Amino acid sequence: MKEKILEFVEQGRFVEAREELICMNVVDIAQFFEETDKHKLLVMFRILPKEIASGVFTHMPYELQRYIIETITDREAKNILDELFLDDTIDFLEEMPANVVKKVLKNSDEDTRKLINQFLNYPENSAGSIMTIEYVDLKREMTVKQAIQHIKKTGIDKETIDTCYVMNSNRILEGVVSIRKLILSEDQTLIEDIMETGVLYLNTNDDQEEIAQLFKKYDYLVMPVVDNERRLVGIVTIDDIVDVIDRENTEDFQKMAAMQPSEKEYLKTNALTLAKHRIPWLLVLMISATFTGGIIRRYDNALQSVMILASFIPMLMDTGGNAGSQSSTLIIRGLALGEINLKDIIKVLWKELQVSCLIGLTLSSVNFIRIYYIEKVSFLVAMTVNITLFFTIVLAKVVGGVLPIIAKKMRVDPAIMASPLITTIVDAMALIIYFSTATWLLRI
Amino acid sequence: MKEKILEFVEQGRFVEAREELICMNVVDIAQFFEETDKHKLLVMFRILPKEIASGVFTHMPYELQRYIIETITDREAKNILDELFLDDTIDFLEEMPANVVKKVLKNSDEDTRKLINQFLNYPENSAGSIMTIEYVDLKREMTVKQAIQHIKKTGIDKETIDTCYVMNSNRILEGVVSIRKLILSEDQTLIEDIMETGVLYLNTNDDQEEIAQLFKKYDYLVMPVVDNERRLVGIVTIDDIVDVIDRENTEDFQKMAAMQPSEKEYLKTNALTLAKHRIPWLLVLMISATFTGGIIRRYDNALQSVMILASFIPMLMDTGGNAGSQSSTLIIRGLALGEINLKDIIKVLWKELQVSCLIGLTLSSVNFIRIYYIEKVSFLVAMTVNITLFFTIVLAKVVGGVLPIIAKKMRVDPAIMASPLITTIVDAMALIIYFSTATWLLRI
Repeated sequence: MKEKILEFVEQGRFVEAREELICMNVVDIAQFFEETDKHKLLVMFRILPKEIASGVFTHMPYELQRYIIETITDREAKNILDELFLDDTIDFLEEMPANVVKKVLKNSDEDTRKLINQFLNYPENSAGSIMTIEYVDLKREMTVKQAIQHIKKTGIDKETIDTCYVMNSNRILEGVVSIRKLILSEDQTLIEDIMETGVLYLNTNDDQEEIAQLFKKYDYLVMPVVDNERRLVGIVTIDDIVDVIDRENTEDFQKMAAMQPSEKEYLKTNALTLAKHRIPWLLVLMISATFTGGIIRRYDNALQSVMILASFIPMLMDTGGNAGSQSSTLIIRGLALGEINLKDIIKVLWKELQVSCLIGLTLSSVNFIRIYYIEKVSFLVAMTVNITLFFTIVLAKVVGGVLPIIAKKMRVDPAIMASPLITTIVDAMALIIYFSTATWLLRI
Repeated sequence: MKEKILEFVEQGRFVEAREELICMNVVDIAQFFEETDKHKLLVMFRILPKEIASGVFTHMPYELQRYIIETITDREAKNILDELFLDDTIDFLEEMPANVVKKVLKNSDEDTRKLINQFLNYPENSAGSIMTIEYVDLKREMTVKQAIQHIKKTGIDKETIDTCYVMNSNRILEGVVSIRKLILSEDQTLIEDIMETGVLYLNTNDDQEEIAQLFKKYDYLVMPVVDNERRLVGIVTIDDIVDVIDRENTEDFQKMAAMQPSEKEYLKTNALTLAKHRIPWLLVLMISATFTGGIIRRYDNALQSVMILASFIPMLMDTGGNAGSQSSTLIIRGLALGEINLKDIIKVLWKELQVSCLIGLTLSSVNFIRIYYIEKVSFLVAMTVNITLFFTIVLAKVVGGVLPIIAKKMRVDPAIMASPLITTIVDAMALIIYFSTATWLLRI
């Protein structure tokens, strides 16, 4: 079908191209445009009806949005922008350079311009920055019939009319009524008799991660947002929350792999930016690993007299690092999902102690069989390796389990206490245990 | 407030306790019950109105659900179960032992029993297992007025009436109409004139992870599910998808930290189970690390003559492991979000090559200054360390970037190619580069 559309465009058969295009979902049109060369893209974009064009525009990557706004006429831009939901306009403006923002503001009427400026001032990642203002407002003294008439008159533009908000004349939120409730009620019923009061609401400054937790906890589809005077200023809808959840998870994955988080897609980020996000932590960890080197140098003589000890260092370090990462990952994730709290630190400590003893015993048994019976290493060396293995696992798991909670207590993101940092800490501990045990058991 | 309720219960003032309880959100009541002792919990559960009791029941942990169903009478159980949405009943039954399932089935009418049995047979993590059957069905020849009357008559029970489904007499899905559209249309309009056709639908066997991708891509709130004959059998709603997204992310976090995934909360899992999930990968990785030991043993003599070489092994291994994990994490995440596809393997390779050269140069420069000028290591040793550092970083990043894509090509979960496995592979490579460079540069 895409080839057919491109053929129509090439032959100048725009009516036919348009007919094919409007049968597609806007998300798919946006994807199709992304794969097309810029000239044809622009032709196709211009022949779309404006409601569809604005839907397609919303789903395009920022670079293409910018290209389009910079290229089309003011009049065309105004048509598209008028059709956009305010939250989509804001999302897009936040990524645009000054000249594009200016062109957009120039082509908005004064009310919209004021609103846009207000929205651009909300802190990043706050309720204000992800909310939309398209909602239905009712009054408590309306009847169901009046309310439905009001919705019919004003509802076309609203992003969600599934939940309606009841406000007094000062725009203070008084309650909510679902469309479902309206439909199921008698015409003459008063809104105040069917509205739900005591509704949970958000403040414009609330953090998006906490908002996502509330949506998950209470299975909400939409939540109202009020300003400091409790006046209703917008709503946050679940589709934006799904994006928030994905972004927050991506951020955790990146931090846990010792990178500075970035919201940009991998393939769309250039090598220099990628490198910049990765270098700082690698440097810090590389320099921290110096301590481990220092420990080895201190036991130079021990190592020289029993060279075989060196060959177990990688295994001990890796196993310790892996054991610690398992624990820290579980705890970091539990903290992020709200399943583990700061007060659980003793429970975590106790659980990790038990688990690590079980794991330590299993792994050292297997390892003993392997190196003593199969590799024929001397008994004392095998014992040294095994004692180290056991205590490294126990310490690694305790440290891995407890550090994320301590980080959270100190208001540092627990995700930092993941595999790379834990590994560096555990490496040093493993080597100290190893050489102390060796000097004691092997008398070197 | 909670103390007050407990006091009322102790004094036998149940009417007052009930009045306080019903002002709370069902999610909060469930949480309150969880913190209360089992005897009082049961008393409070029994005084709740049945609609609220079933809401609270849905939000309780499985152990408490089990306790309640085992303790209350058949008649009480029937009251609660009649009020539950089918998908919640299924969720709960899937976790229950046979005696509870039997008690539930005994107290359901025959139609429900058939439905439950059918649902319990859908494959785990499929559309069938997360869908609900509570939706509104319309016919294309209805008018808007008739449709609204139909909804009023049947809609009370439906989990979501925000989207209505139009079916023919064989229950084949023909289109959808949103409640919004119904409200905004004239009474005499025919449903077939306002319904949307060509709607994307799911099959009962579709995998939940792919379903989540569709919801995210198209910003859906609900999707219809059909059987192999295209008959509508249920709907999947966004609140269940949010849970799916969280579960899938948790699974990825666990796999990436070398654990077998588990859906159970950390604090609710006993030490033995936790250990069982962690031991297999630790064992595999421990035994793989033997190869690294073998490499060191092969270069015994080289190490013995230049002992200082040993002290850089941890730094080289750690930095290589960290560099590789950064790349593999970004690629695994990109694959999970659908931002990177199998065909991008060359792009990834090229990008990682560029990034790794930038990072390799930066880190080796810093390291050279540190060990040559500050630690006063001999020039040739410093060069050996630096050459190894550079090539280890490049190889680590290329391997970390490419292995997850290869895993996906071979239909293995890319999450397995994360930090622990990459570290083990990179360790071996780092040591081989290190000792080859050392024997060549230092002529040992």
